[in-house]
Amino acid sequence: MPLQGPTGSLPLPNFVEKRLSSSSSSAKQRSLNIDNVNQNVRKAKYAVRGELAVKSEEYRAKLQKGEGKDLPFDSVISANIGNPQSLDQKPITFFRQVASIMENPALLENADVLEKHFGYKSDVFERADKLLKDVKSVGAYSMSQGAAGIRQSVADFIERRDGYPADPTSIYLSAGASSGVNTLMNVICATPQTGVLVPIPQYPLYTATLSVLNATCVPYYLDEESNWSTNVEGIRSALKKAQKEGIDVRAVVVINPGNPTGASLQPDDINSVLELAAEEKLVCVADEVYQTNVFEGKFHSFKKGLRDLQKSEKNRDGKFENLELASLHSISKGMVGECGHRGGYYEMVGFDPEVVAEIYKFVSIMLCAPVIGQCMVELMVNPPQPGSPSHPLYDQEYNHTFHSLESRAKALYNAFKEMEGVSCQPPQGSMYLFPTIDLPVKAVEAAEKAGKKADEYYCLRLLDATGICIVPGAGFGQKEGTLHFRTTFLAPGTEWVGRITKFHGEFMDEFR
Amino acid sequence: MPLQGPTGSLPLPNFVEKRLSSSSSSAKQRSLNIDNVNQNVRKAKYAVRGELAVKSEEYRAKLQKGEGKDLPFDSVISANIGNPQSLDQKPITFFRQVASIMENPALLENADVLEKHFGYKSDVFERADKLLKDVKSVGAYSMSQGAAGIRQSVADFIERRDGYPADPTSIYLSAGASSGVNTLMNVICATPQTGVLVPIPQYPLYTATLSVLNATCVPYYLDEESNWSTNVEGIRSALKKAQKEGIDVRAVVVINPGNPTGASLQPDDINSVLELAAEEKLVCVADEVYQTNVFEGKFHSFKKGLRDLQKSEKNRDGKFENLELASLHSISKGMVGECGHRGGYYEMVGFDPEVVAEIYKFVSIMLCAPVIGQCMVELMVNPPQPGSPSHPLYDQEYNHTFHSLESRAKALYNAFKEMEGVSCQPPQGSMYLFPTIDLPVKAVEAAEKAGKKADEYYCLRLLDATGICIVPGAGFGQKEGTLHFRTTFLAPGTEWVGRITKFHGEFMDEFR
Repeated sequence: MPLQGPTGSLPLPNFVEKRLSSSSSSAKQRSLNIDNVNQNVRKAKYAVRGELAVKSEEYRAKLQKGEGKDLPFDSVISANIGNPQSLDQKPITFFRQVASIMENPALLENADVLEKHFGYKSDVFERADKLLKDVKSVGAYSMSQGAAGIRQSVADFIERRDGYPADPTSIYLSAGASSGVNTLMNVICATPQTGVLVPIPQYPLYTATLSVLNATCVPYYLDEESNWSTNVEGIRSALKKAQKEGIDVRAVVVINPGNPTGASLQPDDINSVLELAAEEKLVCVADEVYQTNVFEGKFHSFKKGLRDLQKSEKNRDGKFENLELASLHSISKGMVGECGHRGGYYEMVGFDPEVVAEIYKFVSIMLCAPVIGQCMVELMVNPPQPGSPSHPLYDQEYNHTFHSLESRAKALYNAFKEMEGVSCQPPQGSMYLFPTIDLPVKAVEAAEKAGKKADEYYCLRLLDATGICIVPGAGFGQKEGTLHFRTTFLAPGTEWVGRITKFHGEFMDEFR
Repeated sequence: MPLQGPTGSLPLPNFVEKRLSSSSSSAKQRSLNIDNVNQNVRKAKYAVRGELAVKSEEYRAKLQKGEGKDLPFDSVISANIGNPQSLDQKPITFFRQVASIMENPALLENADVLEKHFGYKSDVFERADKLLKDVKSVGAYSMSQGAAGIRQSVADFIERRDGYPADPTSIYLSAGASSGVNTLMNVICATPQTGVLVPIPQYPLYTATLSVLNATCVPYYLDEESNWSTNVEGIRSALKKAQKEGIDVRAVVVINPGNPTGASLQPDDINSVLELAAEEKLVCVADEVYQTNVFEGKFHSFKKGLRDLQKSEKNRDGKFENLELASLHSISKGMVGECGHRGGYYEMVGFDPEVVAEIYKFVSIMLCAPVIGQCMVELMVNPPQPGSPSHPLYDQEYNHTFHSLESRAKALYNAFKEMEGVSCQPPQGSMYLFPTIDLPVKAVEAAEKAGKKADEYYCLRLLDATGICIVPGAGFGQKEGTLHFRTTFLAPGTEWVGRITKFHGEFMDEFR
C-alpha cells in the first residue's frame, strides 16, 4: 500500500521559469526532460523545502533589497524548518571555541592569549588537542565510518545513557541523521515490494527516500487523541494488510520524540514495538534526534529497551538476540543545533556482519562524513562536566536554550488553544507543534478553486499575509479528512505568534 | 554492455568476522542477510577503500599500539587515496584563519589581538565578516543549493577563468564533488537500460554509483600509448555498440585532468567530445576536480569549450544551444586539499528547467552541503589577490605545495622508469601515476593459486612487505590482459619510493 503523495509536483522556482521562456525552439533537443529522468525522484515529495519555502525565500530577498514596500509584513519568519541557529538559538561557546582551534591549530601556540582575551579555558585546549590527535587535520578524510576516537566517545556516551556497553565498531558517523537514514534505506530496500513501516505523520525524509528507492512506504497512524502515541496494534494491522498485498515488510521506523508530533515514547511503548519487531523479523530504525528536546517526563532509548528485553524473561527463547536495531542521533537538534555542520551517528546492533560490510562499502563510496561535524558529535556526546572550567558557561547556555524552547512552545500552544477551530496536543518534546485545523466549508472550496489542498491554501495565505512560513500537514501525512500544519517554536519573541492569531481570525471571518 | 566488476566481493573487516563467529544458532533469524539486501549495493565495487585499505589500517593500528615488531616495516604509507592533509600537505593559512573565525565569531571582537599574536591580517577579518553576513552561522542550514553569496563568488570565478559569465542560480554547492555526481546520476538514471559513458580507467565513484542505481556503465577506453588521451572515435564506437544492445545512452563522463591517469585534455579534444555530445544528445559531465593539478600545459574547461563552440560557425544550426553540461569542482584536491571539509560545487548549463527542479528537490531532501565546507569553496574560488595583506603567504604556500607535488611526481616517475617490467606515462596532472606492470608468468600463477587477480596479488604483497598501500588497476578498470596500479605522489620524502623499488626487484626475482 504505497502512501499517496501529499502534494502536487514541486513548483518551479522563479529563476527556473525565467529561463524556460528563453529557450529556443530551433535548438538542439536535450537529453533529459521531465518525462525521461528518474521517475522515482519525480514522485518524491519534500514539502519542508517545497513551494512555500521557495516563496518565503523570495519574500526575504525582496525585503533585503528594500523592494518589499508592498508586502503586508516587514520580516519573514521561517517556522517551516528546524534550523535553530538561523533564528535565535546561539551556538554553545565551548563547542565553537574547540572548533576554532580545530580549524586553526596555530591558535594553540598562544593559548594564554586566547585565555586572557577570549575567555578560552584549559579544557578547550585539552579537547582540541585530543581531537587533533584523533583526526590529524579536519581537512583530511577520516576512515569511512568516522574517526576512531570520536566513535569511542559516542560508545562511552551510549553506555552512560543506557547503562549497557556500546561497541565503537558498530557506530557510524554520518553527515547528519539524514545521511544515515539514506544509507540504511539504500541497503534495506531491494525491490519495489520491499516495505518499510513509517509513522504518519512523519518527517518526510522517510517517504521521500522510499520514493527515490522505489520501495513501498507502509504507513501506520499515530493516535492524535492520546497525544500522538504509538499504538502497536495499529502498526501490526498496517503490517498485516501490507503483507496480504504481497509486500515484504522489513523494517519499522519510529521517530522518538516525534517529528512533527513531539510525542515521547514510554518504556512500555518501546517494548511493544521491539516485541513486534522480534516476532515479525523487522529491522527497527529508531530516529532519536530529538532525545534532548523533551519537556515532559524523560527520554527512553530503544537501545536500552532492547538490552533490557534481552536480559529479561521474555528472551528465554532468544527471540531478541539478533533483533536488528539502528538508532540515529544528530548534532542538528537539541541544545546543540549545529545543523549546518552536518554531523550525526547511527549505532547498529544485531545486524548480520555481511550486511554491515555492505553498509561499510556504501558509506565508503561517499568517503566520510564532514570531519569538523564529526568533532561536533564528539563535543555533543562528551560536553564539559561539572568541575571542569568550561562547565558553568556550558550549563548556563544549555539550560537557557532548553527553557526558552520550552516557554516558546507553551506560549505557542496557549495561542493555538485560543484560536477558533484549532486544537493542539500539549507540547511534549522536539521543536514542533502540529495542531489540527478545522476550516469552514467555504475555505475548503476556495482552496479547491485555487487548485490547492485546504491546508496548503491556508499556509500559503498565512505566508502571503504575515511572512510566516509553516508546512501543511499534507507534507507529513495525516488521516483522511483531517487538516494540520507544522510550525517550529524556534523563532524569538511572541510578536509573530500574534501575527498568526490575527491572520487566523481574519481568515475564519472571510470564509465564515 | 555493463562493465565487468574488477574484483571479488568486499572482504569483511576483522571486527566483523569476530562477531560472525559469536552469533547463536538458536537466536531469532534476522530480517536482513547478504542475499536479500539491495543487490545493486552488493554489486558495487569501490577498491580505493577496499580490502587493501582495510588491511593497511590494521597494520597502522598494530604499529601504533607498539605491536608491530614482527612487521618488516615501521610505518604505513597510504598511497591509495588522494588525502593530502593526512600526509604532508599543509592547509592554506588564510583559509584556516577565516574558518576559525567562522567557527567562533567572538574572535572578531579582538581582531587586533589576533593580528598581533597570531598573524591574522585585515583581509582575514573582512572575509570572515562577509561570509558571516552571507551564512549567518556555520551552524545553520543554508538554502538547499548553497548560500547565495558563495554561489555568486563561484560564478565570478568561472567568469574570470573562462571569459564568459556564469549564473549563480545554476550553481549548486555540494558535499565534495562525489555528492554532486551522486545527485546528477540519481536524476539521469531512470532504468537499467539507461547508459552512461565512463572512461576506463576511471575513478570508481562512477561505476559504483551506476551499480547502486542499477544503470548501465558504458566503458570507453583511454589511450595509454598517447598518454591516456581521450579518443572521441573510441567513445563513439562504445556508444554505437551500446545503442545496438538497446542501451539508452544519456550522458558521457569526462575526468579532466584524469583520475587515475593525470591526462589533461586539449581544446581540440574537448571540442570533439562536445560535438559528439551535441550530435548524440548526451549530457556531458565534466569532472574537473584536478583543474589546478596540472604540470604540463594548462587546464581548459569544458564550459569555456562549450561557450566557444556556441559562438562559433559550428553552431549555425543551434546544435550546441541546449547542450547539457554539468561541470564539477571540489575543495578536496589541488593546493587546497581540504577533503575532510566535504566541499564542492557543480554548474549546470543547458538543462531543462523542469529537470533542474527535480535536482533541486533531490538535494533539498539532504538539506544542504556542510556550511563550513561551502565557505571553503568561497575561499578557494576567491583567494587573496596580489596587493592584499594575506597574498604573500598564500602565494608562497600555494607554490610550495604545487612544486613539491610536481617534484614528487617526477621522482616517482623516474623510479618507475628504472623498474623492470614497469612502464609509466610522464606525469601531466592530478595526484596519481598509473603505471603498467608486466609480471612474470609464475607471479600470475601464484596469484591465481591465492585466488587473486595478478595486480591485486602484487599490491597485497607490496603492502605486506613495505606497508605501502596502493590500488590495483582492476579497481579503476583496465584493458583486458593489462595490469596497472595507481599510487598517489602525496607522501613526503623519497624513502618510501626506495621501498617500492626494493620490493619490486625482489618480487621479480622470486617469480623469474
